[in-house]
Amino acid sequence: RISWISDIVVVVSLENIETMKSIIEKYGHKRITVVEGGVTRHRSIFNGLKIFLNSKLSSCPLQKPEVVIIHDAVRPFVEEDILLKVVLAAKEHGAAGAIRPLVSTVVASSVDGSLDHSLERARYRASEMPQAFVFDIIYQAYNQCSDYDLDYGTECLHLALKYCKTNAKLIEGSPDLWKVTYKRDLYAAESIIKDNLSQQVCVTTDMKEDSMQLGFLLHETLKSQVKVSTSVYTRGKNDNCLQNILRQCYNFICINAKKSYFQEIQELVDIIENASISVLHPVVLISVYLTASENMSFSNGIEELAGIKEFAREVEKKNVLVYGLLI
Amino acid sequence: RISWISDIVVVVSLENIETMKSIIEKYGHKRITVVEGGVTRHRSIFNGLKIFLNSKLSSCPLQKPEVVIIHDAVRPFVEEDILLKVVLAAKEHGAAGAIRPLVSTVVASSVDGSLDHSLERARYRASEMPQAFVFDIIYQAYNQCSDYDLDYGTECLHLALKYCKTNAKLIEGSPDLWKVTYKRDLYAAESIIKDNLSQQVCVTTDMKEDSMQLGFLLHETLKSQVKVSTSVYTRGKNDNCLQNILRQCYNFICINAKKSYFQEIQELVDIIENASISVLHPVVLISVYLTASENMSFSNGIEELAGIKEFAREVEKKNVLVYGLLI
Repeated sequence: RISWISDIVVVVSLENIETMKSIIEKYGHKRITVVEGGVTRHRSIFNGLKIFLNSKLSSCPLQKPEVVIIHDAVRPFVEEDILLKVVLAAKEHGAAGAIRPLVSTVVASSVDGSLDHSLERARYRASEMPQAFVFDIIYQAYNQCSDYDLDYGTECLHLALKYCKTNAKLIEGSPDLWKVTYKRDLYAAESIIKDNLSQQVCVTTDMKEDSMQLGFLLHETLKSQVKVSTSVYTRGKNDNCLQNILRQCYNFICINAKKSYFQEIQELVDIIENASISVLHPVVLISVYLTASENMSFSNGIEELAGIKEFAREVEKKNVLVYGLLI
Repeated sequence: RISWISDIVVVVSLENIETMKSIIEKYGHKRITVVEGGVTRHRSIFNGLKIFLNSKLSSCPLQKPEVVIIHDAVRPFVEEDILLKVVLAAKEHGAAGAIRPLVSTVVASSVDGSLDHSLERARYRASEMPQAFVFDIIYQAYNQCSDYDLDYGTECLHLALKYCKTNAKLIEGSPDLWKVTYKRDLYAAESIIKDNLSQQVCVTTDMKEDSMQLGFLLHETLKSQVKVSTSVYTRGKNDNCLQNILRQCYNFICINAKKSYFQEIQELVDIIENASISVLHPVVLISVYLTASENMSFSNGIEELAGIKEFAREVEKKNVLVYGLLI
């Protein structure tokens, strides 16, 4: 998804390696190396780092990177923006990590389970992921750290500080970086995915004046009425532009004033399929047929609709949901 | 909901007092006094505490309690169990509060936004709610605390320690005590409500042998197959027992082998309505009619079903969803 990341190392436990490989293959992910994890978090991360130095003998050796990002799979909503921020800060400071304000006060307990003291909430932050490091710094830190660190530690920033005297830069992250920990978090995650999916609409029109006008009007209305971002594209004009819009969009409204637009809808579905947009989530495509314009008749439209219905049944298998509308 | 809590004080901002009062009236909540909040958390809590001493002039004066529980409305899933634990611990130690393990490491930042140090996660806990205090201790703490505490502090346990030298007992709470903070948390909360609602089923049967046998079988099957708790009740035996079962249950399966059971279903709906069970959430009532038993016919059953359907339409307005089943 992010072009400036050259390699991705996924660390998983031995029993999940095959599952992970089949997921990678199914969704066509590129640039990924799967590495076996260790018994603790730090041991797993260390295994992931070692592969950059030990892969020379393998068929596709990895190149040692200047900066490495460490991230948790349980924080699925990481945006390019925060990745870029931690990488740039790590390049400058040697290490950097995302933080969030504390939601609850943190307390220290004494041996008997009573309150010893509470921390002033404003002075502390929750350390989240992603974190980024100059590769040599974090690798050196892991190389030097004790078995106790590897078995009981959890914080990479702490290792960089302890063993390399690197004070990591702390970067404010978004609330969506939270750790999916409890069952309820799965529902919360689902809500975020649904929210994101519904917030981008691409309106495409054919070259006829009527449909171009309606497309522009729809764009203006959507912009002012709901919290979605829309883009209007006129088919046949510039196909590179379309490719770019389509790559991240799950909702399409196609406005047609031409006598026969069926072929164009088919082409759009082909483009969606080729761009693998519908692999992860269903794509919604609403085809609007304008009967009010010249050379068009209602019966003509009804006929087209019947065709759309049959076509919809077919492409549903490809996770593309097509709907026809006659106005 | 909890009988041993004698009074509940709800602290809300001035502009929400009327809304809160109408909610209390709508759902028939008892033992509640609404108090105006302050500009900060601590000032609001202090206002809530003061009402126990200043209400002597009002129409229904509150009695100063021995122990007071402080809770946040943003933690809606508090169970009787944890409330009892903090109250008993507060009685013994003067103060007590719920805690949870830290999900992320906590870090301290230096003035320039770099990592100063990170805390060893195992030694610290997140302080959650509910908390309980001997009334005189927490009232004295609030009475002594500075404007700075009232304006910038957030932790009641801290005040009890600072001003009354009371080391609160820390009690491990359930994950459901988390603070509903972000939009995603609303979806998570919804999932927990749905989970809870579906986990109790009451199977009722009439006095006929066939239906009692089926009720028992169903109970055994549900118990072993899904994670719900079921109770079987034979109608007409002991109505007090029924009242108790019904008070916390949102799902009913009524098995009927008698020629006419319609009146009994109506009675059950009346009991549900009188107990105000359906005020907060819909109640599901499935009426199963056994045609295989003696004196019963299929056509008889169809007739009863038609009656159920009409009845269902009527009671849907009362938030009771009735379904008929013929087997």
